Amino acid sequence: MSNVGKIALEEIKILVTNVFLKQGCNKENASALANTITKAEEDGSSSHGLFRVPGYVASLQSGKVNGHASPKIKQVSPVILKCDADNGFASTAHETSLPLLADAAKKNGISVLSIKGCYHFAALWPETEYLARQNLVGFACTAFKPSVAPAGAKEAFFGTNPISMAWPRSNNEPVVFDMATATMAKGEVMIAARDGHNLPDGVGLGENGEPSNDPKDILKGVLLPFGGYKGSAISMMVELFAAGLTGDVFSYEAQEKDNNDGGPPSGGEFIMALNPEIIADSNWEKHCDDFFQKLLSIDGVRLPGSRRHKNRLGDQYRSINEELLLKVKSFL
Amino acid sequence: MSNVGKIALEEIKILVTNVFLKQGCNKENASALANTITKAEEDGSSSHGLFRVPGYVASLQSGKVNGHASPKIKQVSPVILKCDADNGFASTAHETSLPLLADAAKKNGISVLSIKGCYHFAALWPETEYLARQNLVGFACTAFKPSVAPAGAKEAFFGTNPISMAWPRSNNEPVVFDMATATMAKGEVMIAARDGHNLPDGVGLGENGEPSNDPKDILKGVLLPFGGYKGSAISMMVELFAAGLTGDVFSYEAQEKDNNDGGPPSGGEFIMALNPEIIADSNWEKHCDDFFQKLLSIDGVRLPGSRRHKNRLGDQYRSINEELLLKVKSFL
Repeated sequence: MSNVGKIALEEIKILVTNVFLKQGCNKENASALANTITKAEEDGSSSHGLFRVPGYVASLQSGKVNGHASPKIKQVSPVILKCDADNGFASTAHETSLPLLADAAKKNGISVLSIKGCYHFAALWPETEYLARQNLVGFACTAFKPSVAPAGAKEAFFGTNPISMAWPRSNNEPVVFDMATATMAKGEVMIAARDGHNLPDGVGLGENGEPSNDPKDILKGVLLPFGGYKGSAISMMVELFAAGLTGDVFSYEAQEKDNNDGGPPSGGEFIMALNPEIIADSNWEKHCDDFFQKLLSIDGVRLPGSRRHKNRLGDQYRSINEELLLKVKSFL
Repeated sequence: MSNVGKIALEEIKILVTNVFLKQGCNKENASALANTITKAEEDGSSSHGLFRVPGYVASLQSGKVNGHASPKIKQVSPVILKCDADNGFASTAHETSLPLLADAAKKNGISVLSIKGCYHFAALWPETEYLARQNLVGFACTAFKPSVAPAGAKEAFFGTNPISMAWPRSNNEPVVFDMATATMAKGEVMIAARDGHNLPDGVGLGENGEPSNDPKDILKGVLLPFGGYKGSAISMMVELFAAGLTGDVFSYEAQEKDNNDGGPPSGGEFIMALNPEIIADSNWEKHCDDFFQKLLSIDGVRLPGSRRHKNRLGDQYRSINEELLLKVKSFL
């Protein structure tokens, strides 16, 4: 009975593909979403894996998300791509448009993909890492519904507004960070609430507007941005890039629009690809590898993303909360 | 005697222009640098104003910086500009190349200016605000010499690595942030040391590697990144953009190369312009203005950059430390 609670990644993929087919997705949409969820579990990022399935299903059942989405892409200049995600999940829009974004950056040195009308409920590193594996620098950000108080405020206005960058290395895994601009991602707070763990100081304010360490209390209150007014400025930049530049909703508008079915709110995503082969000098890769080696040689330092990449190289089984697994299977 | 210690901005500009002409700059370089310093004093940003003159002068006297620099610009694609600053101050490179950067973004939607071989000792908002005044989003970052410990470390490796973004508003001042990715900028710590003020917790470690509140002790020790490992990731991104993508030195290489004359180290700068008219929807400006109004309506919130813009609208005199003023005049 040593495999109790363990499940193979391939099995996860088949399971969720079937769940989404059953719940109203066509093949293309079910497969894109299953890839996203399986990659999250592969990397040990449980807050973006099976944990999200009930939310995805709720948004299909309520009719909010189009499970047959067929994203449309318009190239408005040699370096600017606009994708209308057709009210589908972000994963489908990515599979359609990221290859075109990469091509534009390879040719011109930089390119932007502005996605509108999508439902993003996952990590951002799948899109930035995709670009890094094409020898490009990837950058992405997206807003959400308000759960973070701007610096100085006690009420939620910003989303957790994640930001990700991936740096390409041909002989190594890319260096990738992917982080909420809240002190902690909402998914992590939800996991802590589920598992009954207390949170460190500074993560958020409770229902009464006072600092709290109880994840359940913070979920009723408000999260704080990382690093005070500086993190708050970064979070504002995410709103402006993901909503101002895409023409989709700011977090506060997403809130007004959402049907609160427990799934992701509608929104935009800003993705950028930069090509060091054109922007930088010819020795850029060696130059940057020396930098990473030097950084790693310092006591106490690790490269962002390395834990995820290490998880990925482990065995092909993952331990999944049994209650969650039963819940996911109930959607079949 | 009510004007004791007060000096008109126009007088500051003439004074520093003459100082730099006397200290080895030609007209073009002296004027660009004087503009940068006067703008800083105008906005009440004293740590980037006259305070920097002794350092600028030292770097001219030691022969490190070329006071007759004539920046060369190469357009390697319709959207990528590379500027060789000819070992001059960054201000000269900006005056030469920012108009071309703006033109490329107006035409194509996004553009990058990668500056190499410059000496940057000022704020970044002059370049990002310049772009915002052309109805573009401006983004800039630059590295420095190591003074910040990466998350987990006790030794300096990152520079204070400032990052700035400016958002255009045709009926209002642009919204601009410009911040060190250290908890506090080194210039601010130097000002606190000069004035004998203690610093809050978390700004840095002292000479012995322990947390300290004494700015003099922290100047011998190391600064910490804002917001822990998340701010550390942003600081790493700045190194990669300002050095990895420009082909100029990382902070640790700047240290090895510098002659420690008290002036700025040599380095690169990464500047990006984005054109909402092409990337975003046609109603982007109204959409974003509504966002800013909503943000400002929250109790306790102010827009980044608003204090500087308010200072700018005040009278045209600034209070200057008299010892500093005497020092600056001694260079005539």
